[in-house]
Amino acid sequence: MEDVLARLHERLRAGLPADALITDADITASYAHDMASFCEAGTPAVVALPRTVEQVQHVMRTATELRVPVVPQGARTGLSGAANAADGCIVLSLTRMDRILEINPVDRIAVVEPGVINATLSREVNAHGLYYPPDPSSWEMCTIGGNIGTASGGLCCVKYGVTAEYVLGLDVVLADGRLLSTGRRTAKGVAGYDLTRLFVGSEGTLGIVVRAVLALRPQPPQQLVLAAEFASAAAACDAVCAIMERGHTPSLLELMDRTTVRAVNRLGRMGLPESTEALLLAAFDTPDPGPHLAAVAELCTAAGATQVVPAEDAAESELLLKARRMSLTALEAVKSATMIDDVCVPRSRLAAMIDGTAAIAAKHDLTIGVCAHAGDGNTHPVVCFDHTDPDESRRARESFDEIMALGLELGGTITGEHGVGVLKKEWLARELGPVGLELQRGIKRTFDPLGILNPGKLF
Amino acid sequence: MEDVLARLHERLRAGLPADALITDADITASYAHDMASFCEAGTPAVVALPRTVEQVQHVMRTATELRVPVVPQGARTGLSGAANAADGCIVLSLTRMDRILEINPVDRIAVVEPGVINATLSREVNAHGLYYPPDPSSWEMCTIGGNIGTASGGLCCVKYGVTAEYVLGLDVVLADGRLLSTGRRTAKGVAGYDLTRLFVGSEGTLGIVVRAVLALRPQPPQQLVLAAEFASAAAACDAVCAIMERGHTPSLLELMDRTTVRAVNRLGRMGLPESTEALLLAAFDTPDPGPHLAAVAELCTAAGATQVVPAEDAAESELLLKARRMSLTALEAVKSATMIDDVCVPRSRLAAMIDGTAAIAAKHDLTIGVCAHAGDGNTHPVVCFDHTDPDESRRARESFDEIMALGLELGGTITGEHGVGVLKKEWLARELGPVGLELQRGIKRTFDPLGILNPGKLF
Ligand SMILES: Cc1cc2nc3c(=O)[nH]c(=O)nc-3n(C[C@H](O)[C@H](O)[C@H](O)COP(=O)(O)OP(=O)(O)OC[C@H]3O[C@@H](n4cnc5c(N)ncnc54)[C@H](O)[C@@H]3O)c2cc1C
Ligand SMILES: Cc1cc2nc3c(=O)[nH]c(=O)nc-3n(C[C@H](O)[C@H](O)[C@H](O)COP(=O)(O)OP(=O)(O)OC[C@H]3O[C@@H](n4cnc5c(N)ncnc54)[C@H](O)[C@@H]3O)c2cc1C
Repeated sequence: MEDVLARLHERLRAGLPADALITDADITASYAHDMASFCEAGTPAVVALPRTVEQVQHVMRTATELRVPVVPQGARTGLSGAANAADGCIVLSLTRMDRILEINPVDRIAVVEPGVINATLSREVNAHGLYYPPDPSSWEMCTIGGNIGTASGGLCCVKYGVTAEYVLGLDVVLADGRLLSTGRRTAKGVAGYDLTRLFVGSEGTLGIVVRAVLALRPQPPQQLVLAAEFASAAAACDAVCAIMERGHTPSLLELMDRTTVRAVNRLGRMGLPESTEALLLAAFDTPDPGPHLAAVAELCTAAGATQVVPAEDAAESELLLKARRMSLTALEAVKSATMIDDVCVPRSRLAAMIDGTAAIAAKHDLTIGVCAHAGDGNTHPVVCFDHTDPDESRRARESFDEIMALGLELGGTITGEHGVGVLKKEWLARELGPVGLELQRGIKRTFDPLGILNPGKLF
Repeated sequence: MEDVLARLHERLRAGLPADALITDADITASYAHDMASFCEAGTPAVVALPRTVEQVQHVMRTATELRVPVVPQGARTGLSGAANAADGCIVLSLTRMDRILEINPVDRIAVVEPGVINATLSREVNAHGLYYPPDPSSWEMCTIGGNIGTASGGLCCVKYGVTAEYVLGLDVVLADGRLLSTGRRTAKGVAGYDLTRLFVGSEGTLGIVVRAVLALRPQPPQQLVLAAEFASAAAACDAVCAIMERGHTPSLLELMDRTTVRAVNRLGRMGLPESTEALLLAAFDTPDPGPHLAAVAELCTAAGATQVVPAEDAAESELLLKARRMSLTALEAVKSATMIDDVCVPRSRLAAMIDGTAAIAAKHDLTIGVCAHAGDGNTHPVVCFDHTDPDESRRARESFDEIMALGLELGGTITGEHGVGVLKKEWLARELGPVGLELQRGIKRTFDPLGILNPGKLF
């Protein structure tokens, strides 16, 4: 065992600068898992922090030669254990490959390395009058590589879609160290099967993304937010359906239930209205948002809103968004542990999903806070529990599963944006069914015949 | 040979109604090819016209059992021979599966069978205040199944993207007759590898699409078009770059060169200005298009437009679009034969692409008309030639290839929207490179181990 490890270190060292390799077990242990800390995680053998494509290729060639598993990592903000270490693996952290290589306003593209932080890219393209929409609430920490690995979403999706829609082309180091270029720099292209899209959301199981060509949009005006209070989640969901049915295109449409509102107030002193059962945030980023906001206010009132408050200005709007972005973190502080769900249903079933979740919470006598990308029907029920209490932990796990079962029953998916990782492996099999699963495994084998890339994830 | 055929007919008949099977060789021969009539095409053994998923499954089970190739067909308006028959194949025409199963304004989705005509769906969703953007110029004829098979584009793409962006989920009959469901009815979802996207643009080589869940948008206001005349294509391309760089979002941005303008006038008596070298059409479908059109007019003038004419109203706008949509058909009438190219380059290289194409035309002493989805950098150089003249035919083929080589050189792709089919097989290999090609073939084997699905296409 010692020998194998020594050999691995030696081989890796042959193609990496000294500072690109961490072998100290105390430090490597700190790379064991992402933010879903309750998911199983192994002990890494070594952490590699390459700065170049060639160094990544060296790592993968070594891994193939020695049959060692490799776990790619970005910022490890993931919520499904998808970046968790496997025992004896090479952790391949892409965080040092963090250069923005190009921003082209005519072609509306950016070319980046995978370790670029989402917020860094967003601000940099803003300075060129451009906009990179994908905005997970973790945007100040998470990397573009991780966003591609999880096909990450955010608040923008109801108008602008998810990360997948913005990835035009990729450079990928394959399991055996070969370099693959997929896709294009052009606005359109249909040359062969869409391998680019296959990598998006593949959670590091098909290859290592080392470069990405991303689509950009012109920067829209700052959005203006409206907050509406409802006496029930169902009424808020009615408003969501009415807004979408009437053909509005809000730049965000978000929901926070009372548990979430309280948790956010506690964490951030945000002064949100705690007496309300559901707080709906709607925003528009058009040049003249006034008429849209007025129409939405009316629809909210018609659906039973007890209060409708438009933000005074962009600053107040930003504050409301900050509160919304804080939701997951705030709910994590409610009890000693949380399990964050990510069920997405057709938006017409959103009320059924939220009411059903409340029933599950009541049945198991648990606190389950719900925030949601309501316009997308994407709910994040956060099961709060005391992890030192075995019975409560069991009930938490049961309710977490029941929430996914409910999502599937309502015609939804077990994951709208957080991915499968190790957390939802069994559930992925249920959602895909045997035929789908067989084909997915076939694709995995095509790209990674030795099964060394992020083993134990997805399947 | 006779025996094999008789057996095939007998087996197919066992699971299909009598009127769903055509065996008369005179009639089956008429299903041999799509609109790229100069591409090689084999002779079908039989044409199956199923009405149900079960009937499609029966066809595929029979094909697997007897190892007979199957060529799926929509309306056969394709421009790359992708729907062309293989010798002794079953042509599987999906045109009779043409029901719109659901239109849901709250979830903004439509569920359709593959044989629905694009224009039929578009009009039907319009009646619900909704919009299905993909609009190939063949929209009055082509099917949604064919649009999915080719990942079809159109005029809308500069603002709304291609077909791929609107396919949320699919039901697919696999080569062995099993039924696979991919994707979702929800706005978002990241459960496993994106098989849905893999099928889009796969040209019938991975499975038979029998049902699709499509995303819809709210119907925008009718677009207003502006026409600008330029003394050179390069000047028009400068205008295109300026428009996009300044952050405008036109709902279409199209270019027609002088050859195209003349051909369209000849076919449709459209009265377009024949003295101009390049005609640029820009449109906006926002509630208040005036200021956008004015800004674009100014940018055109700054780029050297000799005349800028905004359409009077929606009717005049529609007429200009009709002229643009007529372009390919009009160019086909210039000589006895045409080869239609479909190179897409980064829009910043559009001028180089068009000027290079003119140089290729001059070198080979040929007429090559160019129309382009200019905002996307997607050009359609149409090589016009006399197919009874062997030397001219040779020069046509050479220039067709040189255009693709130029596109690749400029950082583009050999096909923006028409696909590979049989027409561009060798070129696909060049664009993808050996590693990409190997993985693409691996995927094909995973889905179709016997190689019976649309053989000879793509690779
Ligand atoms: C407070 C908080 C809020 C969040 N809000 C959102 C939200 O609104 N929407 C949302 O979608 N998610 C959200 N997340 C989840 C998480 O931030 C996203 O999944 C994010 O995309 C992960 O990025 P990362 O850099 O941390 O990747 P990691 O967690 O390190 O990795 C994620 C996956 O990608 C793979 N990977 C990473 N880099 C590469 C690479 N270069 N090549 C191949 N594979 C790679 C990993 O193996 C892993 O499977 C939130 C998380 C937190 C903690
Ligand atoms: C005048 C004219 C203008 C055009 N303009 C455009 C344009 O603007 N943009 C554009 O992108 N294209 C354009 N085209 C090309 C063509 O119309 C499109 O490619 C269209 O999507 C083809 O649809 P179809 O129903 O005719 O499919 P077909 O030509 O019959 O088939 C196309 C491909 O899809 C496969 N296929 C069909 N149905 C299925 C199914 N149910 N399951 C699996 N595979 C299937 C076939 O095997 C084939 O590979 C134009 C063509 C013409 C003649």
